[in-house]
This record gives sequence, C-alpha cells and structure tokens, in this order.
Amino acid sequence: MSPRVITTAAELRAATVKLLSAAGPGPVSLGLVPTMGALHEGHAALARAAREENDVVVATIFVNPLQFGDPRDLDRYPRTLDADVELLGRQGVDLVFAPSQDEVYPDGEPLVRLSAGGLGEKFEGEFRPGHFDGMLTVVAKLLHLAWPAADAGYRAYFGQKDAQQLVLIRRMARDLNFAVEIRAVTTVRTAEGLARSSRNRFLSDEEADAALVLSRALRLLEERARRCKPLDLDSAVALVHSQPLVALEYFEVVDPLTLEPLAFNCRETPFTEDGLALIAARVGSVRLIDNQPLKAEPSKGQTDGQS
Amino acid sequence: MSPRVITTAAELRAATVKLLSAAGPGPVSLGLVPTMGALHEGHAALARAAREENDVVVATIFVNPLQFGDPRDLDRYPRTLDADVELLGRQGVDLVFAPSQDEVYPDGEPLVRLSAGGLGEKFEGEFRPGHFDGMLTVVAKLLHLAWPAADAGYRAYFGQKDAQQLVLIRRMARDLNFAVEIRAVTTVRTAEGLARSSRNRFLSDEEADAALVLSRALRLLEERARRCKPLDLDSAVALVHSQPLVALEYFEVVDPLTLEPLAFNCRETPFTEDGLALIAARVGSVRLIDNQPLKAEPSKGQTDGQS
Repeated sequence: MSPRVITTAAELRAATVKLLSAAGPGPVSLGLVPTMGALHEGHAALARAAREENDVVVATIFVNPLQFGDPRDLDRYPRTLDADVELLGRQGVDLVFAPSQDEVYPDGEPLVRLSAGGLGEKFEGEFRPGHFDGMLTVVAKLLHLAWPAADAGYRAYFGQKDAQQLVLIRRMARDLNFAVEIRAVTTVRTAEGLARSSRNRFLSDEEADAALVLSRALRLLEERARRCKPLDLDSAVALVHSQPLVALEYFEVVDPLTLEPLAFNCRETPFTEDGLALIAARVGSVRLIDNQPLKAEPSKGQTDGQS
Repeated sequence: MSPRVITTAAELRAATVKLLSAAGPGPVSLGLVPTMGALHEGHAALARAAREENDVVVATIFVNPLQFGDPRDLDRYPRTLDADVELLGRQGVDLVFAPSQDEVYPDGEPLVRLSAGGLGEKFEGEFRPGHFDGMLTVVAKLLHLAWPAADAGYRAYFGQKDAQQLVLIRRMARDLNFAVEIRAVTTVRTAEGLARSSRNRFLSDEEADAALVLSRALRLLEERARRCKPLDLDSAVALVHSQPLVALEYFEVVDPLTLEPLAFNCRETPFTEDGLALIAARVGSVRLIDNQPLKAEPSKGQTDGQS
C-alpha cells in the first residue's frame, strides 16, 4: 500500500497522533526515518528496521540546503520523489513527510542552530565546513516535528554508512537529552561490496569498478582486526593508492565514540576495544565515504591462533 | 504544601507522567519554570503564571556552569535552596527538579551545543562571550528533560527582565521546532522601580539607590513612546550619566524580535512598530540589566494630542 504523503508540520502532528492512538491501547512507539530522498537499498533497510520495531513509521524526505556548502552540490543532488514513495511503501512505511523548504524554514535560515563543535570539524568536516552544524540543525528540527505528542516510545534510524553523522546525532541526543533512541543500521552494499549511496549514480561503470578498492581496503583491516593481528594500515592505504582513478582523502582508525585516533590492539583489551576505520576518496567528480567497524572475535582475542 | 524535590532525570520523568495522568482525563498541560535558584519576587511571578495556566508545574533549580564566563562569577552566584523550595511551595509548584552538575552533564561538557549565532554576540553577548550558547544549551536540555511523555500541552516561563535571553529562547523554539509555548512574564520591580534580580543582594544601600536611575531612564522613554513623542534617547542617556556610581555599558532601542537598532517612530506605523529599550550598567562591582517594551497608546498613535 502506498503511504500517505504529507507536506505540512500540522498535518504530520495530527496524522501521527491519530495513528498512535489507533495503535493503542498499551505501549506504542513511533519510528522515524529521516532521509534526503534519492532512496536506495540502504534506506530500505532503515525503513524495514523501523517497521519491525515500531507501531507507526514515519519517513521524511527533505533535501536540506543548510548542510550543503556548495550550491551546485545542492542543485545536482538527485530528487526522485515518486520512486522514493514507492520504495517506502514497499517497506510498510505509514507516512511520508515531504515538506517544502518554506515549511521547514519559514523564517529563512535559522538564527539559532546546533553546533557540532570539534567533532564536526574533523574528517568530513574538513572537506565540508559547516556541513555537520546544518545536518544536526535539520535533524533536531525533524525529530521535534515528528515527536510523538502522546505516551509513546520514539526511535530514529540512521545508516552506519555516514559514521560521523551517526556519532554526532548520538552525541546530540545524549548531550541535549532528547528522549529518542538512536538506532544504527548496518551499511548495505552491492554484491561487489560498494556501499550504497545516492551519489553512486554519478559514477561511470569504470569509476564504480575503481571505487570497489575502498571496501576492499576496509575489509583488509576488518579481517586482521577480527583475527587479532596488527592492522597494517599502510598496506591498506597502498591498496587504495594502487587504483589511479581513486584520490584518497583520509583513511584512519578511530574510537567509534569520540573519533579520536586509535591504535587498535585487541591483544591488550580483547573484548572492549572496538575501532572504526573511516575512509573518504574522490572517484572522478564524486566524493565517496565508507567505514568499517573493527572488532576482534572473542575467541581470537583470547586464544589467538588456537581455534 | 512543600513541593517534592527531585534530583534525577529518571525521577523527574516518572513523577511528571504520574501527575499528568492523575490530572486527566481530558486535555492537560505541564508548565516549566527553569531557574538558577536565588529566587525572588520575579521568579515567584513566573511560578504563579505557570500555576494559573497548567495542571502540573515543575520548577528547575540549576546553576549552569556553561553560561558563566568567569569562574568567580559562578562561585559567587548565590545558592539558597531551602528558601527557594519554600518560595516555590507558596506558589503551588508541584515538583522542584534540582539536579547535580553530574546529573545534567554526565559526560562533562557537552560536545554538541546550541549556537545563538549573531543574536548572541550583541548587547549582553559582547560583555559575556559564550553566555548565550551555554544558556540555550542548558535550556534545551531542561526542556527535553521535563518534556511531558504524554498527550499534554507544554509551556515554559521566562522573565521579560532578561530580554535578550527571552528573544533567543523564542528563536530556538521556533527555529528548531520545539513544540513548547514560550511564555514571557512582566518584570517585577521594587516599589522604587529597581528590577528584581538575584544579583541585587550584592548592592550596597547607596548603590541600590543609584541603580534606580536605570529604570527611571527607561521610564522616560516609555512615557514618550506611549505619548507618541520622539524618544529623545540622548536625555535618557544623560540622566544615567548624571549618576556617578553607575557606569553605563549600553542603552539602545531595538526591534524586540531581531534586536536590530530601531528608530522608534509611532507616527508612521502607529499600531505595529513596538520597540524595546535595552540598558546595561555596572553599579559598583555588580552588572545590572533592565529593559522596557515601548508601545504607543493606540489613541495617541492615531490622534496625537487630541485625546
């Protein structure tokens, strides 16, 4: 069934109150899936997770000008509303909130905003100044707009692919006491390993092929971490450099909560020290990011080489 | 009756859910009165307004380190919890939330914060860099902590005395879509006209007397605006300068929504153009602020001199 598409905050509020009240009595919950449209299998996984865990599922489609530095990037960002609504309908989403810019920013650019601080200045922040402040500002707005005006649980779904975004949204919810559970959903990949992204459609076949080196390099690290071996980041970096169509921007292993550099060493604290490998590169005219959580297998951490 | 004093976010949530549910069935509402303690008649007026308009009233007492630039100012800020609880009890407040610093900032200083932008850099912001970012951050946190987890209205109460704070909190609620009604309560003054402030206790008798020149100067402007006369800010400034114990920091007439400079002229748009006079001064070692909304009497605006 096709979900209802609504465009105003007032309709959104009325519609969620109605659906939540119909879902009761008893404990009910609302799942929110904020997106910028141009939906792919990664978004479908978010909607599916939200559908499994909640009584009412709302997806939002809004291309947020505040988080684009370059107006050309904003202009060229793909808009595919009809296909998006169809995809969300297949996952059982109840409501699609697709507001206009005027509905979201009725007074123009907001004067009071969220600030991502130092966490928003590294990695993606170095290449996209202001991006995370704009992203957090619109996510805070969307979380408030869809807030269940009822005694209901509240969960919001974000992809692991945008790792720094996820860290910042978790911090926002924690630092500012948003009573919403932030749920991360594993990155969805093509059969060859390329992380799904709305920007992949801009890659030529040759570039898409070259881009596979990113997930390959991440997999190298993941396998070594799992088997409790020294990561050998240098070899992984060399692998990326071996692909002439790919211009590496950063490739680092960090603490998944603070994004501080991390010397991943599973031997010392085998069950607790997880890492996160972050990578970004330009492939042709397209910037791609990917990442890989690193975790030692408990048995390997304990008894390396014996199982 | 003495209100219940609670110190943890979990207790606050449980207690408000219980009180709201007991207040139903039918539409119910929660009124929040955020304070830094050291309460006086101005705060009593906030609590009274909240009591009149809501089923459940929560006051918070938290001296927020994030909004103090100078640690000495934070140290010397008065703490009078027992008297505060008693005053709130007399106004019929249901719950007092008085959390520790660790309860509000369990991870230390928040990484993600609110940013007041340009609005937070002028007037008070010039003298207290970072103050408004810290203030907005804690107000956002408190609003979220006390958010009614139920189908209930939500109002929060702030004094007109802190005019720039009020403007910024209104903007935050609007810019970030907080579903809370921000209610302003008129400044409470001594019989002589001094605006009530927690800092007044630091004034000597002589200084308190000298400080009256601030409200007198504001009243000059208010009377002229009401009678639709040119404001003559120069005379009002001269009046302040005539008092040697008072060191003027700023004294301006601004748009009450944007804090942009305003040439108040009621003749041209008699019913719409309200102004706001802002004043700040140092009296001895104490910084005082005050303000006065300016509004022409409709009959004066229309038929100046004829009524």
